[in-house]
Amino acid sequence: MYTETVEITGHFIDSLLLPKILDDVVGHDTEFDIERLDVGKRQQDPSYARIRLTAKDADTLERVLRRIRRHGAVLVNEEDCGIETADKDGVFPDGFYSTTNQRTEIRIDGRWVAVDKPEMDCGIRVSPDRKRGECAPISEIRAGDLIVVGHRGVKVEPARKPSKEDAFGFMSSDVSTEKPKGAIVRNIADCFRDVKYRGQKILVVAGPAVVHTGAAGHFVRLIESGYVNMLFAGNALAVHDIEYALFGTSLGVYLDRGMPAEHGHENHMRAINIIRGHGGIRPAVERGALTQGIMHACVSHGVPFLLAGSIRDDGPLPEVITDVIEAQRKMREMIDGVGVALMIATMLHSIAVGNLLPSTVRTICVDINPSVVTKLADRGSFQAHGVVTDVESFLRELCGELGLLVR
Amino acid sequence: MYTETVEITGHFIDSLLLPKILDDVVGHDTEFDIERLDVGKRQQDPSYARIRLTAKDADTLERVLRRIRRHGAVLVNEEDCGIETADKDGVFPDGFYSTTNQRTEIRIDGRWVAVDKPEMDCGIRVSPDRKRGECAPISEIRAGDLIVVGHRGVKVEPARKPSKEDAFGFMSSDVSTEKPKGAIVRNIADCFRDVKYRGQKILVVAGPAVVHTGAAGHFVRLIESGYVNMLFAGNALAVHDIEYALFGTSLGVYLDRGMPAEHGHENHMRAINIIRGHGGIRPAVERGALTQGIMHACVSHGVPFLLAGSIRDDGPLPEVITDVIEAQRKMREMIDGVGVALMIATMLHSIAVGNLLPSTVRTICVDINPSVVTKLADRGSFQAHGVVTDVESFLRELCGELGLLVR
Amino acid sequence: MYTETVEITGHFIDSLLLPKILDDVVGHDTEFDIERLDVGKRQQDPSYARIRLTAKDADTLERVLRRIRRHGAVLVNEEDCGIETADKDGVFPDGFYSTTNQRTEIRIDGRWVAVDKPEMDCGIRVSPDRKRGECAPISEIRAGDLIVVGHRGVKVEPARKPSKEDAFGFMSSDVSTEKPKGAIVRNIADCFRDVKYRGQKILVVAGPAVVHTGAAGHFVRLIESGYVNMLFAGNALAVHDIEYALFGTSLGVYLDRGMPAEHGHENHMRAINIIRGHGGIRPAVERGALTQGIMHACVSHGVPFLLAGSIRDDGPLPEVITDVIEAQRKMREMIDGVGVALMIATMLHSIAVGNLLPSTVRTICVDINPSVVTKLADRGSFQAHGVVTDVESFLRELCGELGLLVR
Amino acid sequence: MYTETVEITGHFIDSLLLPKILDDVVGHDTEFDIERLDVGKRQQDPSYARIRLTAKDADTLERVLRRIRRHGAVLVNEEDCGIETADKDGVFPDGFYSTTNQRTEIRIDGRWVAVDKPEMDCGIRVSPDRKRGECAPISEIRAGDLIVVGHRGVKVEPARKPSKEDAFGFMSSDVSTEKPKGAIVRNIADCFRDVKYRGQKILVVAGPAVVHTGAAGHFVRLIESGYVNMLFAGNALAVHDIEYALFGTSLGVYLDRGMPAEHGHENHMRAINIIRGHGGIRPAVERGALTQGIMHACVSHGVPFLLAGSIRDDGPLPEVITDVIEAQRKMREMIDGVGVALMIATMLHSIAVGNLLPSTVRTICVDINPSVVTKLADRGSFQAHGVVTDVESFLRELCGELGLLVR
Repeated sequence: MYTETVEITGHFIDSLLLPKILDDVVGHDTEFDIERLDVGKRQQDPSYARIRLTAKDADTLERVLRRIRRHGAVLVNEEDCGIETADKDGVFPDGFYSTTNQRTEIRIDGRWVAVDKPEMDCGIRVSPDRKRGECAPISEIRAGDLIVVGHRGVKVEPARKPSKEDAFGFMSSDVSTEKPKGAIVRNIADCFRDVKYRGQKILVVAGPAVVHTGAAGHFVRLIESGYVNMLFAGNALAVHDIEYALFGTSLGVYLDRGMPAEHGHENHMRAINIIRGHGGIRPAVERGALTQGIMHACVSHGVPFLLAGSIRDDGPLPEVITDVIEAQRKMREMIDGVGVALMIATMLHSIAVGNLLPSTVRTICVDINPSVVTKLADRGSFQAHGVVTDVESFLRELCGELGLLVR
Repeated sequence: MYTETVEITGHFIDSLLLPKILDDVVGHDTEFDIERLDVGKRQQDPSYARIRLTAKDADTLERVLRRIRRHGAVLVNEEDCGIETADKDGVFPDGFYSTTNQRTEIRIDGRWVAVDKPEMDCGIRVSPDRKRGECAPISEIRAGDLIVVGHRGVKVEPARKPSKEDAFGFMSSDVSTEKPKGAIVRNIADCFRDVKYRGQKILVVAGPAVVHTGAAGHFVRLIESGYVNMLFAGNALAVHDIEYALFGTSLGVYLDRGMPAEHGHENHMRAINIIRGHGGIRPAVERGALTQGIMHACVSHGVPFLLAGSIRDDGPLPEVITDVIEAQRKMREMIDGVGVALMIATMLHSIAVGNLLPSTVRTICVDINPSVVTKLADRGSFQAHGVVTDVESFLRELCGELGLLVR
Repeated sequence: MYTETVEITGHFIDSLLLPKILDDVVGHDTEFDIERLDVGKRQQDPSYARIRLTAKDADTLERVLRRIRRHGAVLVNEEDCGIETADKDGVFPDGFYSTTNQRTEIRIDGRWVAVDKPEMDCGIRVSPDRKRGECAPISEIRAGDLIVVGHRGVKVEPARKPSKEDAFGFMSSDVSTEKPKGAIVRNIADCFRDVKYRGQKILVVAGPAVVHTGAAGHFVRLIESGYVNMLFAGNALAVHDIEYALFGTSLGVYLDRGMPAEHGHENHMRAINIIRGHGGIRPAVERGALTQGIMHACVSHGVPFLLAGSIRDDGPLPEVITDVIEAQRKMREMIDGVGVALMIATMLHSIAVGNLLPSTVRTICVDINPSVVTKLADRGSFQAHGVVTDVESFLRELCGELGLLVR
Repeated sequence: MYTETVEITGHFIDSLLLPKILDDVVGHDTEFDIERLDVGKRQQDPSYARIRLTAKDADTLERVLRRIRRHGAVLVNEEDCGIETADKDGVFPDGFYSTTNQRTEIRIDGRWVAVDKPEMDCGIRVSPDRKRGECAPISEIRAGDLIVVGHRGVKVEPARKPSKEDAFGFMSSDVSTEKPKGAIVRNIADCFRDVKYRGQKILVVAGPAVVHTGAAGHFVRLIESGYVNMLFAGNALAVHDIEYALFGTSLGVYLDRGMPAEHGHENHMRAINIIRGHGGIRPAVERGALTQGIMHACVSHGVPFLLAGSIRDDGPLPEVITDVIEAQRKMREMIDGVGVALMIATMLHSIAVGNLLPSTVRTICVDINPSVVTKLADRGSFQAHGVVTDVESFLRELCGELGLLVR
């Protein structure tokens, strides 16, 4: 029989982690003996458990250990993490540790070191002086980089479950269209104020339906009032925003009257042509050719924006980063300091940005289509809260809750 | 060769009926000769066409005739309609004419007579004196009733296509979530005012999501201001409205805070029990036990309501008509004089009521789920306009457009 | 300070019940002291916990107690349950205990007695001799009935979480369209065989899309092979099945060619008229007027069926129970002995039947629309497993897995 | 009063074009006089109309003319098209003619010349010798290019409506989940055989759900049997296909058992790492490291594939074209000769490819989510037919209809 002893510390009772660990253990032909269990008597008290595991062979035990590490368990006598050198650019060593977006520590030279830039589906690159570690995507790996392999010496601190008082907890419970939206919008407004107060940034990821549904004006108010510190979008949001600014239409439909314009389907191409003629959005604003709308507001209020390309883009506008890996790289650079990410009406960009964010960044996904939110959660953005509602109404109400007059 | 000559009068050019007729003709092995075609020179002018049809056998010709009658064609020398007597209660004679919900006339004793109470999937019952005809559902047929059979002597006047200036025309073009809602809501508000001005009635068909999403207050405002003249709903709308009035929750969730109440899932059963204890909604209002909400507003403002039962009902409340055929009968009685029907967040009741309405009643279907609107259209309610949006926002904005303050 | 001691026995570790209880306790201003905790060492071993609760007032303590009883906790010194007499027909006494669909026991004269006919949203009616209890819906209550009130003396045994080996566990994890269906269908086939082997019944609840999508033949095979022991449906399923049997169309579309029939929209009314002429489905089968299809197979193979009315019904067919409360009553009588319920393509009937079933009946909900499954779960049918897929393909593959040749 | 005379030739009666033209005319304050109308007597006969338009000012008349040209009307005395020179790279001259994806001709030096490479949202670039024209996307424009401006001298030949016998006509009528799929799949199989017979190519655009739902084997059969001549996809399809080939999982779920693999969520990253280690998919196949699956089948059967990047890509695989404009360029080169495009389970790639295809390429879009098909149609791919069904079942049945054994 093979035996190892693990320990777990923290709020593992109310996080349901202990049962998950025991479940994993008994579900994999391994017996456990709870050698010690100190349950915190009050909600704020941490708990401690020490559990001896016994399996009939080393492989089974190894598999169980690897599994329960995801829930925060570590060996009582943990070793240093394994480190190997990458042979080629863009390729991890075999057996590389594949990251989650949770807070993670690695043990180097007997010390636990926090891993920087938490991001899922990356490897952990160790600094040449072996003092620090950071998540690095495969495309950034260079031959010679030091990469963590195996699972020994890696400790994950799973995200705490939101507390009962937190309306976000209820929001995230399931994706239903039959919920009162008022309270949810109030919570998001509180969250925005709180993030601003703490000096963190509000990132908005938005799709063109923001314009199509007539919500551009609300969005502009949020920008002007400092509630958008960064905008990630695609070519389409910018194109239709500029189409609306120049022609009053979005996808050829007059937004004020809800009627199609004559030859309106051409307007977005004419908008693209005009901006390309000026050399870009910024020059068009500076020369007075673009005087309103979301993109104008970003330029005039100094809100950095990133437009990432997609294969369905028309044009595109000059600012669009057409290389998607380059766009990911830029987004990674920009997200430092983000406290909350609001994702509106865009599945592609929501999932892309969700993949980059650490689990500690609160993520709110608003879409009229429930499957968008479901897909986001399916891909591991556990911290995502879904709101299934009309985009225009949502932004109008959010402005209202934040005390902004909507013109 | 067999030959017949048909004529068609009206706006068949812009209604696209002529092409449909010619299409049906050539698609069924029949040749046509347009003997005369007078196209109206201006939009308001009617057109006239006389077309001779030639087929190689009588059956083919008959089939084509039956088909193009649906588009308004009639024989130049039309005969009287066929009439047979029903043998049994609840059973039509074989070969009964199955109705559409369009305006229809029948030819009796050489005169064209309008058919009353247009409704789809009915038969046409002729009065004993053979002076009038009306649509009658199969369950209402009694032995001895005179019923129209065959298709000769029946003329359908297809609904006109809405004109270009009509934003409803655009709305109905397809069911998209990416349309500006503002203009649509304005149109609906105009339509409501217009219906009121003309002395017609506004019928609202509503599902419980009106309450769940926190829109009950908006709905009450519409009732108080005379914009709801009749309410059709199920047990669930009334139960959750009363649950909210008595406990502040809907499906156990506090609507103001968006948080579940303790044991809140029991609240709807307690609400039902209380109303059953009082003997009904009306007595509960009269005794002061129910003092707010949608049902309270209906009772206190004299707005008639009909609650139709379904097999998923808890309780039900005493006013619920548990026999579905009886409920249909009551709805048929009540819909006379309805000018517009607004259907909110209920597939079952929307389709049920849509089946009863003549094609001349404008029908607006609001749901966050696009498939509800699609299904309504699939079942033949051609006059239905779909709005895919959040129910709460829709009702709030509708109140706003109607100048009602939302508390 | 007020104090009570509760105990909990069973598989509360892997059911995550202990954390839920502790969470409820600390979340409601109450402190706990785990006086004893014996964790089962192996998966099959039950665990035991005794917990002392301390709150600053009696109300708080009472509220916590009421709450944690839902998770299986009982007082160490539990009293008998409260019992009151109903004053009026169809009305519970105030403070009635509102049931879940879980296994429940009540304490009468010091003994724990199982509550029969578990069903959610009912009351518990105690037999006049006070020896037994059963769930009773509000509409069945008669003046003089003995009804349990309050929550003391009531013990709930929450359903066990499915084990790891159980693919249903994974299925139910979330409602995704992006899952391999093959393994799921195999599991359902195994479940059907198992239920049959154990002598329990297979209930199928089906909507008309079974016919529209061309799956009637597969369904007939299931009936002929003994895999459908009971059918619950609405008028529409039977009407379109008979329309298809008589005319080859469903909703007017030829199912073999996928093309609309001429005047096909009338076919369902002609089918209804024919069956009404015969006095019902059974007489029509007996006289040889209906010779194929689902309803024919039910009649000829002695499979009981229940057709429940809804307000959108055309006709209806004579066998349809038009009173919805009467239909619920009949369904309650019939579901005794059901081991698995397969719900296909019908939201209304799925939720209605789901509301009646105890939590121990495995429920499988198949629909192409994810929101149907979500709604079913929202309403408390925790035992429901969702499969989002095409109905026709599902039934064909199910036949295949069960070794039935599909003609 | 200003007057112009237009003519229209072809099947404009059954294409409903004449009514649309007259509608546009009277809807824009213009009167018409049908000077001549020769209606084809049989379905195959073309019709001819000459219509004089009269408006009160030149602008109105111009607007009407521009509008009705979209429906195939041309001036009786048409002029040559306007041509201007582009000033800058990547920018059209003001007033450029914005293309549809319909067959288009331009009049140069008195002759009508067909425009090559029909594609929507492009400009028309005229060859330096002014003998030919072709659609060119804005990003391909170079200073000095000759570009068509205005709408004079441009003739559009709108696509004919599919004939009655064509089941695709019915399919495309609306996007319903309640249709018989058997006949539709048979039609698609016939279409595939027909395209193959005519020597055209079958393009498949596929998303990763093809793999997730367990349909990779069916897809491989199609490739092996010559029914896929070209594959357009994203990184995700290839990654999950290779994950499945190497580990038996897709998104970490064992497809045969429908159960999650241990650490399965890491498998796709390990798959990416292995392929990157080999330098690409092709080398991995050549070295025997990748021996099965969709990508393997493409490589071994010489089926060209294009993997276009998106910002949500992990890795990506070496063959992925990460620059989206470069990917569009490659797709444009490759689509020449495509007779049918089958788009499965990918909104992004479906819309991207749909934007590039001329209206003459039959496009079939298969997805379990109705909104994907709706969105495709919203963006102007009028020739798209939607099938709402489960992807795995669809591909299995398609293989069956094509006589391919599914292993």
